[in-house]
Amino acid sequence: MNDLGITIRSLDHKAMAEARERLDRLAKPPGSLGVLEEIAIRLSGITGKVPPVVRNKAIIIMAGDHGIADEGVSSYPQSLTRLMVHAILRGGAAVNVLARQAGARTLVVDMGVKGRIEHPEILDRKVREGTANMLQGPAMTEEEAWSALRAGYDVACSAVDQGTELIGTGEMGIGNTTASSAILSVLSGFPPELVVGRGTGCDDRRLQHKREIVSRVVEMHRPDPRNPLEVLAKVGGLEIAGLAGCILGAASRRVPVVIDGFISSAAALVASRFDPQVKDYIFASHLSEETGHDIMLNMLGVGPMLHMRMRLGEGTGAALAFGLIDAGVRILQEMHTLDEVMDLDRIQPPNPVCRLRKLT
Amino acid sequence: MNDLGITIRSLDHKAMAEARERLDRLAKPPGSLGVLEEIAIRLSGITGKVPPVVRNKAIIIMAGDHGIADEGVSSYPQSLTRLMVHAILRGGAAVNVLARQAGARTLVVDMGVKGRIEHPEILDRKVREGTANMLQGPAMTEEEAWSALRAGYDVACSAVDQGTELIGTGEMGIGNTTASSAILSVLSGFPPELVVGRGTGCDDRRLQHKREIVSRVVEMHRPDPRNPLEVLAKVGGLEIAGLAGCILGAASRRVPVVIDGFISSAAALVASRFDPQVKDYIFASHLSEETGHDIMLNMLGVGPMLHMRMRLGEGTGAALAFGLIDAGVRILQEMHTLDEVMDLDRIQPPNPVCRLRKLT
Repeated sequence: MNDLGITIRSLDHKAMAEARERLDRLAKPPGSLGVLEEIAIRLSGITGKVPPVVRNKAIIIMAGDHGIADEGVSSYPQSLTRLMVHAILRGGAAVNVLARQAGARTLVVDMGVKGRIEHPEILDRKVREGTANMLQGPAMTEEEAWSALRAGYDVACSAVDQGTELIGTGEMGIGNTTASSAILSVLSGFPPELVVGRGTGCDDRRLQHKREIVSRVVEMHRPDPRNPLEVLAKVGGLEIAGLAGCILGAASRRVPVVIDGFISSAAALVASRFDPQVKDYIFASHLSEETGHDIMLNMLGVGPMLHMRMRLGEGTGAALAFGLIDAGVRILQEMHTLDEVMDLDRIQPPNPVCRLRKLT
Repeated sequence: MNDLGITIRSLDHKAMAEARERLDRLAKPPGSLGVLEEIAIRLSGITGKVPPVVRNKAIIIMAGDHGIADEGVSSYPQSLTRLMVHAILRGGAAVNVLARQAGARTLVVDMGVKGRIEHPEILDRKVREGTANMLQGPAMTEEEAWSALRAGYDVACSAVDQGTELIGTGEMGIGNTTASSAILSVLSGFPPELVVGRGTGCDDRRLQHKREIVSRVVEMHRPDPRNPLEVLAKVGGLEIAGLAGCILGAASRRVPVVIDGFISSAAALVASRFDPQVKDYIFASHLSEETGHDIMLNMLGVGPMLHMRMRLGEGTGAALAFGLIDAGVRILQEMHTLDEVMDLDRIQPPNPVCRLRKLT
């Protein structure tokens, strides 16, 4: 059991060995399906089942506003957070399109959006109406960070209780690349130049401004990198805390998590500081265009499958990677073994039963 | 019209501009879906339709044997080509699993397998029973290379006539990474050290042997890199010539082609030497583990979407990438515009008709 009072179990190595043994008997050179084989093996280790079952999929999208948006770190107005949450609830955002393609449902969680979200399907877990401007004080109190983390944990656990077998993470929050860069700078020790990117598409001037803001924020708060709750409270975000809780919740229930891009990875990094064991449950979907995402994935020890130069967030990369996760499972389930293939000459031509049918 | 007597048209730039304009109006920062947007734009340019239609998908798998297999360049016996072709026809190979997942059918073509393939669904286009050992002479005559190229072209054109809107390429042929490396060495001018890999999984000793074989083959034949038919005949393969024809056929009929790994890319490279315009119709699926694949993709000017460390061939990478192609089309078709999202406050709460229904 970790400091959070939850237990994240190590992988089931017996199931992994069984999956690997099965994969090595299939009609292909051992290991030649690369990451697809690694997916099948790790999913077996996570779920303890060979083949693993991940039919029921959900993208959990957490939304929250950021006080730091007042400093002009984004090219979009803060009010867009709420509008985009509505767009996702109405099924018209990019993540909806890709989730539908993947056969995944979307769960939208209000962790701290400014203004009311009026929709029957919103999960209202609002901790506060956006974070404070972290240039003037901590983004939130440690109690609030804890509430957000706990809410995310609960959302993941209820999704699992309702049958979800694979979780993808997504988010919406104008200003959240700034908070994620600050988190990365604190946890990695890298200076802002290496961990601040253009977000939704800053020009050079705004990028320079954003770097200065992140520098000042990190310099001012100096959170202890060994204390992830303090990091979340001082320079984090409500949806980032929620996603960290969500990832920890999924792992504690032995459900694999596919993380999306920069913000989801920041949340995963925070989760891994609460309990490093969580990394075993994480699959990286894509390498984002955002500066510093590669550093995050290296720190998490996971490699991205997709190189699509995407930088949208919402969970779009995670949804796109669901098909690859499925592919890994299907390989284990459906492929014939090399022995079956070599047996061809014994079982060809088509069996006599068919022939008799033709004669009668 | 090119030297082959076929015409490959340039992309429809009007359709591409229309697709780009539509993408820029969607509810996301312009360009933030990266390669998904590029897919949507290029497919519009290829098909001349916005949104493009690529519902009907096929993986065309061409098989052939290689005389050079006698030199011990592969860890598997030549007889496995025929056995694996049967496995694919029976639906139990890796490519079948991934094609089923993608909703694509598989067309299996015997371009030159040693021995008879007995199956009602095989497309018999056998030019000869495997190539000759190219260490002792040309792999085939130029007439045979032409027949194979022509057969591949015809297969693609009939697939298109039967309604296929997206083609993926795949292959099966023990020894075909050796032929592909020889082709790459000739067309790139790079020495064998840079373009010969482990294929299905050679150990160090066999890799060294394979490099020497490729060196000797290239040195002995010195085909003119400006003459792709000569390259195919001297150091190519029947399935490689067939795939080159297939890619040219698809492009001439304005149908996009997703290429798989090392062998498919060698075929695409040859196709591009017949007509460089063909590159506009090619999508790279994945970056293979095979040494030199990155060089091929650079020469083709296409970037791989998937980094899965796969090295199986058959069309597995192409099938896996079909989902990404679909995703690009769906984004264009299904996403709401930013204007629609910004209009939220005007159209919420739910429209009065629903309310009236509840009251009556």
